Amino acid sequence: MIKQINHVAILVEDLDASLSFWRDALGIPVGKTEVNPGENVNIAFLPLGDSEIELLEPISADSALGKFLAKRGQGMHHICVEVDDIDATMQRLAEHGVQMINDAPKSREDGTRYAFVHPKSTSGVLVELYELPKA
Amino acid sequence: MIKQINHVAILVEDLDASLSFWRDALGIPVGKTEVNPGENVNIAFLPLGDSEIELLEPISADSALGKFLAKRGQGMHHICVEVDDIDATMQRLAEHGVQMINDAPKSREDGTRYAFVHPKSTSGVLVELYELPKA
Repeated sequence: MIKQINHVAILVEDLDASLSFWRDALGIPVGKTEVNPGENVNIAFLPLGDSEIELLEPISADSALGKFLAKRGQGMHHICVEVDDIDATMQRLAEHGVQMINDAPKSREDGTRYAFVHPKSTSGVLVELYELPKA
Repeated sequence: MIKQINHVAILVEDLDASLSFWRDALGIPVGKTEVNPGENVNIAFLPLGDSEIELLEPISADSALGKFLAKRGQGMHHICVEVDDIDATMQRLAEHGVQMINDAPKSREDGTRYAFVHPKSTSGVLVELYELPKA
């Protein structure tokens, strides 16, 4: 039911400076980069084994991620856990009294369904759930 | 050279409360638990795919992890990246001017060699390097 860590997202001030560590020094190739205008963020995706490291650089100080960066500083932002069936997982979490940020799954363009669990239910960690589109 | 995410370590105030989310609600089985008297910490290891989530509960407020918890609160503490050859990796990092916490690899009882990279060189993330013992 719970498959693997899909990605670990790291919030950074300067994507190029961060890539100089993760890509250039450590040697993890960048899979792709993208600008997400909806969330005002530049993203670099670095596949690593069955998981991925995502580097997030807020473009705007007014965005949710920009405010988070100003308040908490750089560092790990969330961990994403891949599940088979996000509806079943969320039902199970609800039965255990776990508080969600998203009451229902949202969908990305590629069909990935996702929802965030509130850190108050997870010992302070922002946890994202992913259900990838079925092949 | 860089193989995969070995584990993500989460610092928690109360291991039982944290397990009520990760184990009971989310349904990730606990692989093992241990008390690490050297570091004054209770640890639960939850294997997940090729990686692992480690929940760390400081036993003593005076320990390094206890002080970190008091200062920064609960949340993700470090990410551990598994490499083939930690000596070669550290030499490469040094050539790129990356600052280490450990200037030379340390060893665990099981033969795992490890070293921590300083967050000032990684966009604020505490990164651990692991070289597992050869089979």
